[in-house]
Amino acid sequence: MIRHPAFQVRPWSLVESALDLAVLAQTESLFALSNGHIGWRGNLDEGEPHGLPGSYLNGVHELRPQPYAEAGFGYPESGQSILNVINGKVMRLLVDDEPFDIRYGELRAHRRELDFQTGILDRTVEWESPAGQVVRVSSQRLVSFPQRAIAAIRYQVEAVDTAVRIVLQSELVANEQLPVAANDPRSAAALGKALILEDGGSLDAAGYLVHRTERSGIRVGAAMNHEVDGPADTSMESTTFHDVARTMVSATLAPGERLTVVKYVSYGWSGTRSLPAIRDQLQAALTLARKSGWPGLCEAQREFLAGFWSNADVRLDGDLELQQAVRFGLFHVLQASARGEGRAVPAKGLTGPGYDGHTFWDAETFVLPVLTLTYPAATKHALRWRHSTLPAALERAQQLGFAGSAFPWRTIDGAECSGYWPAGTAAFHINADIAAAVLNYCRVTGDADFMSSYGIELLVHTARLWSSLGHRGRDGRFRIDGVTGPDEYSAIADNNVYTNLMAQQNLRAAAEVARKFPVRAKELEVSALEIAGWADAAATMYVPYDEKLGVHPQSDGFTGHQPWDFEKNDCYPLLLHYPYFDLYRKAVVKQADLVLAMQHRPDAFTDDEKTRNFAYYEAITVRDSSLSAGTQAVLAVEVGQVELAYAYVGEAALMDIDDLEHNTADGLHIAALASGWTALVAGFGGLRVTDDGVCFAPRLPPGLDGFAFRVCIRETPIRVEVGAESATYTALDGDQITIRHHGTVQDLLPDTPVSLPIPPAPPTRPVHQPAGRSPQPRHLR
Amino acid sequence: MIRHPAFQVRPWSLVESALDLAVLAQTESLFALSNGHIGWRGNLDEGEPHGLPGSYLNGVHELRPQPYAEAGFGYPESGQSILNVINGKVMRLLVDDEPFDIRYGELRAHRRELDFQTGILDRTVEWESPAGQVVRVSSQRLVSFPQRAIAAIRYQVEAVDTAVRIVLQSELVANEQLPVAANDPRSAAALGKALILEDGGSLDAAGYLVHRTERSGIRVGAAMNHEVDGPADTSMESTTFHDVARTMVSATLAPGERLTVVKYVSYGWSGTRSLPAIRDQLQAALTLARKSGWPGLCEAQREFLAGFWSNADVRLDGDLELQQAVRFGLFHVLQASARGEGRAVPAKGLTGPGYDGHTFWDAETFVLPVLTLTYPAATKHALRWRHSTLPAALERAQQLGFAGSAFPWRTIDGAECSGYWPAGTAAFHINADIAAAVLNYCRVTGDADFMSSYGIELLVHTARLWSSLGHRGRDGRFRIDGVTGPDEYSAIADNNVYTNLMAQQNLRAAAEVARKFPVRAKELEVSALEIAGWADAAATMYVPYDEKLGVHPQSDGFTGHQPWDFEKNDCYPLLLHYPYFDLYRKAVVKQADLVLAMQHRPDAFTDDEKTRNFAYYEAITVRDSSLSAGTQAVLAVEVGQVELAYAYVGEAALMDIDDLEHNTADGLHIAALASGWTALVAGFGGLRVTDDGVCFAPRLPPGLDGFAFRVCIRETPIRVEVGAESATYTALDGDQITIRHHGTVQDLLPDTPVSLPIPPAPPTRPVHQPAGRSPQPRHLR
Repeated sequence: MIRHPAFQVRPWSLVESALDLAVLAQTESLFALSNGHIGWRGNLDEGEPHGLPGSYLNGVHELRPQPYAEAGFGYPESGQSILNVINGKVMRLLVDDEPFDIRYGELRAHRRELDFQTGILDRTVEWESPAGQVVRVSSQRLVSFPQRAIAAIRYQVEAVDTAVRIVLQSELVANEQLPVAANDPRSAAALGKALILEDGGSLDAAGYLVHRTERSGIRVGAAMNHEVDGPADTSMESTTFHDVARTMVSATLAPGERLTVVKYVSYGWSGTRSLPAIRDQLQAALTLARKSGWPGLCEAQREFLAGFWSNADVRLDGDLELQQAVRFGLFHVLQASARGEGRAVPAKGLTGPGYDGHTFWDAETFVLPVLTLTYPAATKHALRWRHSTLPAALERAQQLGFAGSAFPWRTIDGAECSGYWPAGTAAFHINADIAAAVLNYCRVTGDADFMSSYGIELLVHTARLWSSLGHRGRDGRFRIDGVTGPDEYSAIADNNVYTNLMAQQNLRAAAEVARKFPVRAKELEVSALEIAGWADAAATMYVPYDEKLGVHPQSDGFTGHQPWDFEKNDCYPLLLHYPYFDLYRKAVVKQADLVLAMQHRPDAFTDDEKTRNFAYYEAITVRDSSLSAGTQAVLAVEVGQVELAYAYVGEAALMDIDDLEHNTADGLHIAALASGWTALVAGFGGLRVTDDGVCFAPRLPPGLDGFAFRVCIRETPIRVEVGAESATYTALDGDQITIRHHGTVQDLLPDTPVSLPIPPAPPTRPVHQPAGRSPQPRHLR
Repeated sequence: MIRHPAFQVRPWSLVESALDLAVLAQTESLFALSNGHIGWRGNLDEGEPHGLPGSYLNGVHELRPQPYAEAGFGYPESGQSILNVINGKVMRLLVDDEPFDIRYGELRAHRRELDFQTGILDRTVEWESPAGQVVRVSSQRLVSFPQRAIAAIRYQVEAVDTAVRIVLQSELVANEQLPVAANDPRSAAALGKALILEDGGSLDAAGYLVHRTERSGIRVGAAMNHEVDGPADTSMESTTFHDVARTMVSATLAPGERLTVVKYVSYGWSGTRSLPAIRDQLQAALTLARKSGWPGLCEAQREFLAGFWSNADVRLDGDLELQQAVRFGLFHVLQASARGEGRAVPAKGLTGPGYDGHTFWDAETFVLPVLTLTYPAATKHALRWRHSTLPAALERAQQLGFAGSAFPWRTIDGAECSGYWPAGTAAFHINADIAAAVLNYCRVTGDADFMSSYGIELLVHTARLWSSLGHRGRDGRFRIDGVTGPDEYSAIADNNVYTNLMAQQNLRAAAEVARKFPVRAKELEVSALEIAGWADAAATMYVPYDEKLGVHPQSDGFTGHQPWDFEKNDCYPLLLHYPYFDLYRKAVVKQADLVLAMQHRPDAFTDDEKTRNFAYYEAITVRDSSLSAGTQAVLAVEVGQVELAYAYVGEAALMDIDDLEHNTADGLHIAALASGWTALVAGFGGLRVTDDGVCFAPRLPPGLDGFAFRVCIRETPIRVEVGAESATYTALDGDQITIRHHGTVQDLLPDTPVSLPIPPAPPTRPVHQPAGRSPQPRHLR
């Protein structure tokens, strides 16, 4: 839990001022660049040493057979794994006779900086070769937001003391050898040489490769071109052979003299288009990029990010470390999704191969709510991707014997890839999570067109699923048996409260929207009877409650289970040291489940219930998932535990910078980073958007001088500045908007700040965590 | 459900009078010979055609990696599969230039008969070759009970119309090519060429092979020798090459002339002994067999079986088909176990590779109780095998985080091989089932030495498991959460009644036995406190009850689950057509679970509860398992449903002859066959052996003229003859013994028949089965 000494704290960038090979793979994830379409891990330009080389295109995957020791009906036969595609980052350097490799010779200086405002990864190195030649290398790298098919590198090498002969080899490389995967269920499945060469060529300063996958039927290509600036003797040639396209630039540099190469890389892929079409697409994108030029690409990148931050920034006065972490997180959330048009937001974004590149419920539950309030266009695209997978979800439901849609627990292309159904297919709540993301997007943006086109279909098909999954008990209440909720240390239980409440919201919303858009409803063959059935199921939804303990059991029978022996069985994460059998039957919680229900269905619990439930679950929640601290923070603020909440904010936001789950090497935890932002905005900001409107309940986080954030509601950016005594709201643009501040209704006129007093925090009751699992208090760091 | 027309009904044998290749694999299982050590499927002597060639040695297996789409802590990494070892059955015949193959030429006559009194499989064939030569082939085959390493064949060929040149090739063959396994989770995993040749040789009429496995480290050998009787020109030679040892006998037969060859085959295997030791062991066994000679082996076989039947036979006057089936079943139960010394009783015996040759809970629960009453020496050996696997069970419990022993759900050598823990490791009831088998064996035989040596260790270690698996609820009652009971259409539920009641018996028995054998208890480090803990857990064991319905839920919450839609979802077996997800959460039962609890813990239910429970579960039990009908029969008699009970007896006993589960080809359902006997003896005989003594409650099955059975209790064979009005008990030997007849205490003096009147059956209440799942009534067959 101790920050690596190589990292420096800056408000608007992540800086590394020394290179430690022990955390190289972790830094490759932290310094990854992406626009949601292309992802480049922060590998060193020269390719080696590396932790894990990685270049990804959102959606490009290979299929592999899924093995089962004992097969069963409905088990997915085919798995999907994200592919390391053609690597366009490689810039090898020969200094006289010596390859530039920081493991040899002497690394005199090293610095990397990822700037959240420019979107550029900057690297400067001073290196003395084993033969004693000294060079300075400076590289800048970007993956363009405005030009989604483009990445670019500006690479400069300078002779320092003596003249050196330089050869720079700029490459496209396919089928890189990958390190053997760790034996950890959370890492990726191994794939062999996955790309088959179809075409390649080179001319002057340019080259390209087109490959195809063997089983998933995807054609993928990359092309490059270069601008070179060097001394008079600079020469250049390009070749292509096997899986490599290469441009070689050679020059002799006098001391102080420099060779500068700008490399433009374009990517394209398709499951349907022909080889010539892909080839042309690559060249067209490259032409546009060269037309912009390196300065133009940089400027457009900066402009794009300025626009984003103007709706999204969070300011924390007095906690620079967390300030950096929250911006880092938000920057990566944007990178994971901004240009993912028609594709999913994977759990690791495009920063690594972890979880096989799959998307899960956490996209809809943790990532999209942040984007909805900061960059709603990305939410819309992500939900349209879900909508595009409806055929697979309808087919899956049919296979399982249910009506409506059964969206996959994990997938790249929409087909279920879960190989362990108790923690996969049985987690049907993903369907309600998708519905909730639709609802939330439409509430926040007011995008009625989306609701009447895509939204209604998602709501109707998921409501149909719930209707057929549930049944009416002898007491007339609607029950949902044998499902798995968010907590992965429980499975296959009856009446999971989170699932039932989210399904209730799903059913209710489907009924409302079907009534609101009768023509669309008719097209979807929704009858009045069906609508009444949904409304009735929602109205009679069973929510278990333990009267004796005065808390909601996570699901039927949960509060009767034996407590986990936290003193004796204290190897974390528990799932790597104890069998699921024992975890499932004990009162131990991996991640917020009932507490998440209290965040997403605040209306379903009284304040008193929230306080008691929070205390009960706090004592048995171990946070072996990265998807817990952020949620616990939100509820902690609500029940008055502000110190604790702030500690959880830190844990969520620092998940990857501090490598808290020890698997940042495989990629960043995008949803955890998103939850850090939510922990501040929904926790200390108290923001809830419900059918009743937009509610804030801000409180200044402990120890801070000030706290401010921006969200965008119905196209109106709202700035909220929180002090110890009062909060100031400013609608920065757009129409008048009505909000609630700690329950008080307030209209905001454009550009007219309104200050309102903050009432005292509610009384708290003592809470504790399992032994050794309390979060690190912020003031002790 | 319609008997194959080729089978003929005989009281003491299974006869096939025509050959139908469509059911060849099924007949190979039905006609399999075994002594519990060696198993030979009923393959045709000439090797081909075959359904599935099979020669097995109990315990000889190979290891294979177990794959998981998503791995987890405690998942077994290695699986085990029974191996098809060296085939010593092969007797190929060349008739002039034509191989004897019933698929060519004309099969003029075919007959096979497996005689349950002689233990010999007899085959007679008359065949006209494509060239028009006619031969009569007659073979007898046995796997010796008295000489456990020996199998033998007497093969005779006779020329009919014209002189023929004959070559007989008698072989040992290793690494036979096996058909590709079906995609059915119940069939075996495929293994490639699994045996590696170590040694082989031949001389005169003899030959041998010794192989070893690659991963399991087992050395396995077979040797053969021959006695030949033929015309003067008969010649013979033997060779060995690759995986084959071969003896060739050639002769020219005039019409009516015969060539007779007796083949002796010995088998040996070991995980530790050297190659020379195995080789010598093979020759020694062969020498003894040749000393006995074919007539001597046959006579000893007959004597052994006469001894068995004198303690075990069941007579059904008026239902010849069931008469045959019950004896067939009992014969195969004996074959599966008689000489299994130090080894398990696999689910399929040694009749086929189904379930990978694993043993499950059904050995202790269904097979051993039959052997305990008929051939207790086999039970003792089987329980000593379990005891020998205690180290693995102790280690497994420790791995899972529990005290005591966790016996494997499925295994060959004692290590857990289950690849799907919700229906494997979670089925902890196997530990109580083992304890119950120990208890029952000691109650029936009075074998106190066994209890104080092996039995106490099994009881103590299983009781320790239950102590650590369960916990005390807020109400002070002892609960066992998150386990899987016998019914495989439910899993991971709290307080499965069967499990809790069997654990209660286990705990109580451990406490009693530890008090009875204090020295042994001290050796096992059992303290008075531990004993008190077991007794207290047993005394406060929680057994859920649904007051509103007036029935016991199979486990907590079960009776609140949605009923399966039997009208709509009617593809059986359900597990091949519907996901476990849906089966687990619905009120549908694969096999007797609560009903099995009522059989094994009759004291825990009132008569009225039995009647209501039976009716409730009867309506939702689909019998997709072969382990259900027998249990349902026992309880059906108890609640007065005698017609229904008799139908279930038929289903259990005819499981394989009628191929009711459509997988008899992979081997017989030994436990189902055993349950057919139990259905008669515990059902219509009403036999229960409890701490209170030996109780009978006989009733004549409907439509029969008489019903009689024999059981052996405390070394006293008791004959029970049941008529419509009365039952007659005779202690055939030994001491005086006290029984109860329908509740009335009665002493039996040796060889002194006592007739007692049978009271009227209790009143019944109507019961029904799921649509289309009623058993075939016996009178309609």
